[in-house]
Amino acid sequence: MIITTISELRNYLHNQRLQGKTVGLVPTMGYLHDGHLSLIRAARKENNVVVVSDFVNPTQFGPNEDFATYPRDIERDAKLATDAGADVIFHPSVEEMYPTDSSTIVEVEGNITKVLCGASRPTHFKGVTTVVSMLFNIVQPDKAYFGQKDAQQAAVLMKMINDLHMNIELITCPIVRESDGLAMSSRNTYLSVEERKQAVVLNQALKAGKDAFEKGEKEASKLVKIISNKINEMPLAEIDYVNILDFPSLAPVSKIEKEVLAAVAVKFGKTRLIDNVIFG
Amino acid sequence: MIITTISELRNYLHNQRLQGKTVGLVPTMGYLHDGHLSLIRAARKENNVVVVSDFVNPTQFGPNEDFATYPRDIERDAKLATDAGADVIFHPSVEEMYPTDSSTIVEVEGNITKVLCGASRPTHFKGVTTVVSMLFNIVQPDKAYFGQKDAQQAAVLMKMINDLHMNIELITCPIVRESDGLAMSSRNTYLSVEERKQAVVLNQALKAGKDAFEKGEKEASKLVKIISNKINEMPLAEIDYVNILDFPSLAPVSKIEKEVLAAVAVKFGKTRLIDNVIFG
Repeated sequence: MIITTISELRNYLHNQRLQGKTVGLVPTMGYLHDGHLSLIRAARKENNVVVVSDFVNPTQFGPNEDFATYPRDIERDAKLATDAGADVIFHPSVEEMYPTDSSTIVEVEGNITKVLCGASRPTHFKGVTTVVSMLFNIVQPDKAYFGQKDAQQAAVLMKMINDLHMNIELITCPIVRESDGLAMSSRNTYLSVEERKQAVVLNQALKAGKDAFEKGEKEASKLVKIISNKINEMPLAEIDYVNILDFPSLAPVSKIEKEVLAAVAVKFGKTRLIDNVIFG
Repeated sequence: MIITTISELRNYLHNQRLQGKTVGLVPTMGYLHDGHLSLIRAARKENNVVVVSDFVNPTQFGPNEDFATYPRDIERDAKLATDAGADVIFHPSVEEMYPTDSSTIVEVEGNITKVLCGASRPTHFKGVTTVVSMLFNIVQPDKAYFGQKDAQQAAVLMKMINDLHMNIELITCPIVRESDGLAMSSRNTYLSVEERKQAVVLNQALKAGKDAFEKGEKEASKLVKIISNKINEMPLAEIDYVNILDFPSLAPVSKIEKEVLAAVAVKFGKTRLIDNVIFG
């Protein structure tokens, strides 16, 4: 069932809750792939009602980013989501979420939103935390599901939930990959045949970094070098960042003594891909 | 009953809600006066459970303001609130609300938080919207009660609720005044005998402005002049602002054709008092 208005979704959920049902939310920007479907399946197992939001959120795109061209296919999404166990696909218009005079934001300040994607996309996480707050307020889920592929997003949202004392359990699900190891992403559809071939290097480079760590290299800077060198072997790859940070605080790390996030962002032509691994 | 931790309050409210009870929230900074008590009585009439928060919120005070000296008396507050109908007084520590690494904010951007008190207290409303969001997340009230005395605060919170799609009804209650017309405020305790005497001018000046409007003066600038002149008759009064704005948008107004807010902030020594009236 596709619902497009906040009031209709609220009415539906109110009735469900009167029956004592729990609600799981899977926020997405649509154009669903197996990564999203793994989140929906996880939500299906743990909740009585599963809501999948399908909304390309304009405020998390920068002025020169791909908001207009981001792939959209609500009919296909609705079928895939329903087959994976969704009860409701919430697909609001931009005007429904952001009426003309909308001007309230939710922002996680500090280092955690300034590193990694926050450095190259300075307004991105403010858009994410604002829209996810809205979705939390509308759906009031017991649990919300996000992919580990967007590791920084998960860390930022966890901080938002803790700092603002939101009564919601955030659940992070593992990265789902293509058979050659490329992390699934709606943006993979942008890649040319040759770019698609070379894009496998993100996963390979992170693996090389993790292998080196497991063989004894504990210096973050040396591991960053190993990962970067591997990515640079691909002629079409242009590194945005390669970094290793404490997880989930995303504070700087020099010698690795506890859990860290190794994260990369790499451009192939106009397409920017991210991937990451946690180890330590 | 005084509750000091978020988890204890959540447990209590969870049990109440399982019994189908509605919850009203009255957010205060304590040192309760009849204005607060009128909010608690209103909440008592309309909800099964009434929570009064009693928390002097550091983030809504500027660096040179009166956070340290703001009057506090939790035992007296608990008795007054309970007598007025409160079931719970929520009195958390600063550390309970803002753990050391807390860095998430909720902010209403734009003109509405930049005029009036937002001009003289540039970080004030960011602190208010952040702490009220926290309280809303903790209590998840059906209705929340605020005083018309803080008219801009009510307008800002109404915008926050609408913009972020919070499922909460905001209720604004009339200003409660001393017998000579001074609006009740915890800060009135700061006034010397002579300042207290002269402070009645805020209400008198606003009345003079409203009278002039009702007698036909529709120019906002002329009414501002009338109000300012009246305040300036008091030797100890130092005007922070006198302004007339559209309500509740707080957009500028020249000729009054619909509802407006006439608002004043006046300093007596170190004590800054506010008052307002809505007309038109």
